[in-house]
Amino acid sequence: MPSSPSDQSNPAPDMRRYVPVDHSRVSFDRGFWKSWTQTVRDVTIPTQHKRLEEEGFLEVLEFDKQAGPLVRPIQPSGLSMQHFFDSDFGKWIEAASYTLKAHPNPDIESKIDAIVEKLERGQMADGYLNSWFIRREPDKRWTNLRDLHEMYSMGHLLEGAVAYFEATGKRRFLDVMIRAVDHIINTFGHEPGKLRGYDAHEEIELALIKLYRITKDPRHLALATYFVDERGQMPSYYDGEAIKRGERPEDYVYKTYAYSQAHMPVREQQQVVGHAVRAMYLFSALADLAYENNDPSLKAACDRLFDNLTSRQLYVTGGLGPSASNEGFTREFDLPNETAYAETCAAVALGFWSHRMAQTDLDGKFTDKLETVLFNGALSGIARDGEHYFYENVLESHGQHRRWKWHYCPCCPTNIARFITSLGQYFYSTKPGELAVHLYGANVAELALGDRLLRLRQDTNYPWDGDIRLQVSIDQPSRFTMRLRIPAWCRKASVSVNGEAIALDGCTVKGYAALDREWRNGDEVRIALSMPIDRLYAHPAVSEDGGRVALRRGPIVYCVEQADIGCEPQRLRLPPSTELVARYDAGLLGGAIILEGTALEADTADWAQALYRMSPPTLRARSFRAIPYHLWANRDAGAMAIWLQEA
Amino acid sequence: MPSSPSDQSNPAPDMRRYVPVDHSRVSFDRGFWKSWTQTVRDVTIPTQHKRLEEEGFLEVLEFDKQAGPLVRPIQPSGLSMQHFFDSDFGKWIEAASYTLKAHPNPDIESKIDAIVEKLERGQMADGYLNSWFIRREPDKRWTNLRDLHEMYSMGHLLEGAVAYFEATGKRRFLDVMIRAVDHIINTFGHEPGKLRGYDAHEEIELALIKLYRITKDPRHLALATYFVDERGQMPSYYDGEAIKRGERPEDYVYKTYAYSQAHMPVREQQQVVGHAVRAMYLFSALADLAYENNDPSLKAACDRLFDNLTSRQLYVTGGLGPSASNEGFTREFDLPNETAYAETCAAVALGFWSHRMAQTDLDGKFTDKLETVLFNGALSGIARDGEHYFYENVLESHGQHRRWKWHYCPCCPTNIARFITSLGQYFYSTKPGELAVHLYGANVAELALGDRLLRLRQDTNYPWDGDIRLQVSIDQPSRFTMRLRIPAWCRKASVSVNGEAIALDGCTVKGYAALDREWRNGDEVRIALSMPIDRLYAHPAVSEDGGRVALRRGPIVYCVEQADIGCEPQRLRLPPSTELVARYDAGLLGGAIILEGTALEADTADWAQALYRMSPPTLRARSFRAIPYHLWANRDAGAMAIWLQEA
Repeated sequence: MPSSPSDQSNPAPDMRRYVPVDHSRVSFDRGFWKSWTQTVRDVTIPTQHKRLEEEGFLEVLEFDKQAGPLVRPIQPSGLSMQHFFDSDFGKWIEAASYTLKAHPNPDIESKIDAIVEKLERGQMADGYLNSWFIRREPDKRWTNLRDLHEMYSMGHLLEGAVAYFEATGKRRFLDVMIRAVDHIINTFGHEPGKLRGYDAHEEIELALIKLYRITKDPRHLALATYFVDERGQMPSYYDGEAIKRGERPEDYVYKTYAYSQAHMPVREQQQVVGHAVRAMYLFSALADLAYENNDPSLKAACDRLFDNLTSRQLYVTGGLGPSASNEGFTREFDLPNETAYAETCAAVALGFWSHRMAQTDLDGKFTDKLETVLFNGALSGIARDGEHYFYENVLESHGQHRRWKWHYCPCCPTNIARFITSLGQYFYSTKPGELAVHLYGANVAELALGDRLLRLRQDTNYPWDGDIRLQVSIDQPSRFTMRLRIPAWCRKASVSVNGEAIALDGCTVKGYAALDREWRNGDEVRIALSMPIDRLYAHPAVSEDGGRVALRRGPIVYCVEQADIGCEPQRLRLPPSTELVARYDAGLLGGAIILEGTALEADTADWAQALYRMSPPTLRARSFRAIPYHLWANRDAGAMAIWLQEA
Repeated sequence: MPSSPSDQSNPAPDMRRYVPVDHSRVSFDRGFWKSWTQTVRDVTIPTQHKRLEEEGFLEVLEFDKQAGPLVRPIQPSGLSMQHFFDSDFGKWIEAASYTLKAHPNPDIESKIDAIVEKLERGQMADGYLNSWFIRREPDKRWTNLRDLHEMYSMGHLLEGAVAYFEATGKRRFLDVMIRAVDHIINTFGHEPGKLRGYDAHEEIELALIKLYRITKDPRHLALATYFVDERGQMPSYYDGEAIKRGERPEDYVYKTYAYSQAHMPVREQQQVVGHAVRAMYLFSALADLAYENNDPSLKAACDRLFDNLTSRQLYVTGGLGPSASNEGFTREFDLPNETAYAETCAAVALGFWSHRMAQTDLDGKFTDKLETVLFNGALSGIARDGEHYFYENVLESHGQHRRWKWHYCPCCPTNIARFITSLGQYFYSTKPGELAVHLYGANVAELALGDRLLRLRQDTNYPWDGDIRLQVSIDQPSRFTMRLRIPAWCRKASVSVNGEAIALDGCTVKGYAALDREWRNGDEVRIALSMPIDRLYAHPAVSEDGGRVALRRGPIVYCVEQADIGCEPQRLRLPPSTELVARYDAGLLGGAIILEGTALEADTADWAQALYRMSPPTLRARSFRAIPYHLWANRDAGAMAIWLQEA
């Protein structure tokens, strides 16, 4: 949670900036998110610890024992996964910690304490902390920032330490990590004798800003600022580092430092490039620094890159990074469906970035994307059972894509877990005299508005319908502006306060309707967001989607799964005249609105042995159904498609 | 050229089998193939030798010098390319040799002799010959047939030796390779003390059959038969070999021996799987052995696999093997366009296989595919200038695919070269009393028909039009059956002899019209193959082509290239009503029939920053042209597509 921007390093604080609500003050006791948050808390968090144990991840912390043989596969870059196992249990600690305030759990807490104890014991005298290098290659520490993820791993431990401190008040882990950060401060920077490096896998930057918001230590903010400013300066640190190792810089396996957004200074970057998760973590840090340092040049870079991403490189699901070869971006408009990489981590991190952007600049274009990933391209990364996952979130499959119990590079499970266990913070932000409502979904929240405590209750079946009731509980009348997000997908919205309609045209700015009034206890806001079934078309430069249509209702992107229709959905055609109806199916994986209608199916019976022929396929009418994309691959293996042929 | 099947190892020779014409007796002195064959002879062959020299390939034959450091990249399998450099100059010798009989070239011959001299000097006393193992790892020879391509390399040297012997009569190279084969015979087989292995990259098998057809040594045929019969027997030789090396068989990088068609005995294989070039080389050997051994079980396996390939797994261009990860096949109907691997070598080798099948079983379904690859998916592998190449023959591009001068794994350039320098052999086959005309295109051929010498002249602009005149020159009248292929793409064909129309219905069997008569000097056959512009549709299970159409005229598959239309062809729509005309464009890369018409273009101007929207793209009419696919990427870089949206 950002501090109020009052410290002296910011001489001209921008008071319009918002502060997200403390996630632990938002309770999903009903509605859509109830079962998801419960499942993640009760199933995902415990089973992930079990996997970390049984897969040997936690073994790397046995600093007293000799390291065993490597059992994990080696990446093309020559990297063992074990190089960054720290990040995985760091992220698990973070995800678990977010549950502890509202739902204390001594078992989980003792598991975290056990990890912290080992980390503390393993930490080197100078503060250095990375299990791989301490145990296996102590002489190689800080020799390869380009490939070896040292600060990436430390960053995730730091985020875990911050979350655990905030949840429990225990300082031990935090202190360990502050010593590690001191070591980094002593090692890197512009000062003589220090290395002018920065980690090729961004992460430490945003972790440092979280730390700074607790410690208020300006050195922590300055270190993050240094890393961001130094990034991409030429000559490249990575060239010099490679030469020192006796390697030729041009032998770099990924060929270009664009892979790590280190090909040019961040303020000059015009296009989102390289590894998608790295890019999103970097841009999240840029947004944080724009906020903390009140830096318009970083805000401008973020705006430019956000527009590039969302207008040229983003899947309709909010997935991003089409290519497996660099786990990231290729050319603009390259959005293949079946081979989409669209890593869960990247979608989650786009949520991080979008959310941060909205705190400085309350614009629905940011929160719209947060909502898109939340209901689609990120949520698809976890199974309904809470213990199976996708790493790649394809938009089309012939049945070869199945969720897995664990992955050789299991970065995604803990990422989607920490997204969901901290979900409350994304719903509301405040600043003096203002409350912003970003997301809809049944919950009860306690919000501090200046010195006022406000209780807000959302009653709604959202996202299954667009009727939302907000009830205000407040001890005495209070004037403030409530800003309600009107989603871009909604073409017909109405809002009333205590039964009195509000003229939205006059009060809506950048996708948020402003209700500026004296609020009293018991006030009721009603929001009606019309949710017809939308047919979506992709820009003509997205060649894979040409002649195809996707179905969306409200924030939910739909797909057709073979499990429902008995044939590959790639064979369906949906002429523009197709009538579709939305129906609630209580039996579908916990209940969901499904779409039903009549489509055409290309018949294969009359093809005999022909693979190509001179007459088009015969089409016959048939009923079909579409389900929310995030629910796919929870039933029998089979084909799936989001983009369906139109005719 | 197969021998007539008269040796005693075939007790029941099938006299219906055809023998291809000697390629050197077919002269492309006019027409479509004149410039291609000239360019390959005059540009491709010399520049390929230059590349082999400047890229250090020939250096591996400096057996007297210490081997230098490896400069080639290492493959995922842990293999250096240098492991199989022998195959590249072996294939170059083969391609070059095919030009020498009709076009003697002392310079090329001396270059070949220089290579042969080095090979002879390097050959080990026991006959073993592989430059990698002799120079670098002599203790590892025959320890890893699964990965190291020893017999693959020897096979290509052997094919080169056979071709060079046939072209020049010089035995030196042939004798070197016969000694190498003797060594293989002494090393592998069922007999006690021998290894029961076979090379995972097929090639030696078909080379041995070529050798056998010269030597008539039954041991050469028996060795090929052994390799084919042993392949895929369980327990796998590769398992045992891995264990001997101290490896775990399950760590095999390609996971399954299906990669090498060694997952089950060849006669049991139902589906074409694994590495595409390997599969085609194996199947070519199966067809040869079905022919030489008169083995119906191999013929049946070939038929089944050919049908599987052509009805489930073949691109419309004749390209095959969609996936880069295994350089081969995935699931049936998986035919992605932009990521098509479709290696040039695989298309060429499908030509080899199809051609071999037709010698045992004169069925147009085989020669149709030979023609398809010849004019499309194989010919696309070489640039019009004869010195730039494609390895992957994609069916769609956004401009990222450019032809290269040389490749780190340059198997394709010499493969397409040997296909074209031996092209004549694919045009005609004979057997006593019969002449089969497989392909059309201007040429003059000298054919031995029993003891008769026949001169056949084809006058035609084929493939640009379907009018063909065949003139027979023969010293005295002779009764034989001339079988003319009527291509499957042709829906209206007519044939006349000396002006007298032939009723094709009555005489056409399996795509060949039989003209059984007494032929006299000066007889003239006229063939008219109607060549309208065809719209092709793919089977509905080919999801990438759903709602799309491809254009074909005669044997030529067309594509639309950005160089001609100024926008990405992916934005075009070709409604069924589109009128198309064919026009000869003399200025296009040596002259070609192009297709012209009016299409619709999806407008991008009205999309502003939107990536997705709720209204379909605006379509506006515009003229466009399509060019033969094999000519693409010879002009400015840009996008290309074969499969165009229909509406």
